[in-house]
Amino acid sequence: MASGQLSRAEALMCSGCRHACHVMLYSDTKTQLFGRIPIRHIVLMQMRFDGLLGFPGGLVNPSRETLEAGLSRELLEELGVSLPISIEHHVDSCYAPSSSSSSSSRLITHFYVKKMEEDQIIEVERAAASVAADHGQEVLGMVRVPLYTMKGEGGLASFLSHSFIGNARSQLVDSLLRFNLVAADELHKALTHSLKIHTQTAEDLKTALALTGAGRKQF
Amino acid sequence: MASGQLSRAEALMCSGCRHACHVMLYSDTKTQLFGRIPIRHIVLMQMRFDGLLGFPGGLVNPSRETLEAGLSRELLEELGVSLPISIEHHVDSCYAPSSSSSSSSRLITHFYVKKMEEDQIIEVERAAASVAADHGQEVLGMVRVPLYTMKGEGGLASFLSHSFIGNARSQLVDSLLRFNLVAADELHKALTHSLKIHTQTAEDLKTALALTGAGRKQF
Repeated sequence: MASGQLSRAEALMCSGCRHACHVMLYSDTKTQLFGRIPIRHIVLMQMRFDGLLGFPGGLVNPSRETLEAGLSRELLEELGVSLPISIEHHVDSCYAPSSSSSSSSRLITHFYVKKMEEDQIIEVERAAASVAADHGQEVLGMVRVPLYTMKGEGGLASFLSHSFIGNARSQLVDSLLRFNLVAADELHKALTHSLKIHTQTAEDLKTALALTGAGRKQF
Repeated sequence: MASGQLSRAEALMCSGCRHACHVMLYSDTKTQLFGRIPIRHIVLMQMRFDGLLGFPGGLVNPSRETLEAGLSRELLEELGVSLPISIEHHVDSCYAPSSSSSSSSRLITHFYVKKMEEDQIIEVERAAASVAADHGQEVLGMVRVPLYTMKGEGGLASFLSHSFIGNARSQLVDSLLRFNLVAADELHKALTHSLKIHTQTAEDLKTALALTGAGRKQF
């Protein structure tokens, strides 16, 4: 068990803690990318209002509702569909890294994983982009996580080099291993390559920064 | 004019060059995030099959169709809607940074910007997640770009710290300035903060990498 982890029961005993629940929704798929690269699984994440990638979910107040009922309520707002979540979907709970600048109470994040059918996942994507109350507000768009690797680099490695909220990247990596969605050595290779892509991105970002320096005079 | 840039006519004279056309679709909006933060504009980007963020579009062969007709064809596949693009939407053309590992012909990227009505943008999002042929294939999801800044950091800065294909981040930054969607000093501040977020992400990525090292034994 990683440091900072605690059981669901222990987490609920913390008086004064805030609680956030998130879920990874996924399905199997037989679809192949370009008719030749097996996609294997569809894993859903989202672009959040704060510009970071994360899983659907949000804050839950356990004195008013169960963690799972609260998570379902959040999912209805963000995805536009009713998705029952139960204790059996619970994977782990842990203290969020404490923010030194924040004086508010400690945050515990609860993580769930729910396997669905492919057509249910597709329905979630449709509803999220049409009827969901939070579309264009708390949620800027749903995205699928590419689990494959193309030409030794593109795909999972690039995706993992993005910026994620809190411990969402670790939750993703941990779940891909735990549910055997990506082989451990493949994931390790992708993360190693991801660090290289990340370093290259820094150079590109500096170029864009220089552009706005010039842009102030140019435009 | 930035280095590597050329006119649309010059670009078309390059024999043997490959051509890629992409478009930034955007609209104005009066919607406020959480009822208090002005969203101002909706700008669409997408999560690509290779795990990177980019604009809709793709390769066009000018010997078979005009650049704009080719771009419209790509948009129909990726977004599921018919969107006429004309020369008046053209912003710039430039040589893509040459890839040392590739022996193929030089790539020229053509960039377009098209302003739409808010309800048209919402219709594009719906169609992209439902009827588009490339959904779940070349496109893993459409996302809106947050142009606002929350608590001095979240929003545009976080978004700009992600990993983008080719020159997509520069195309975004350049267009935000050119069409007055974000003030130059605000954008410069966001990019400066973006570099900090990017550095923090490296640490988080190393943590995830360590997790898979342990994971090989653990799972």
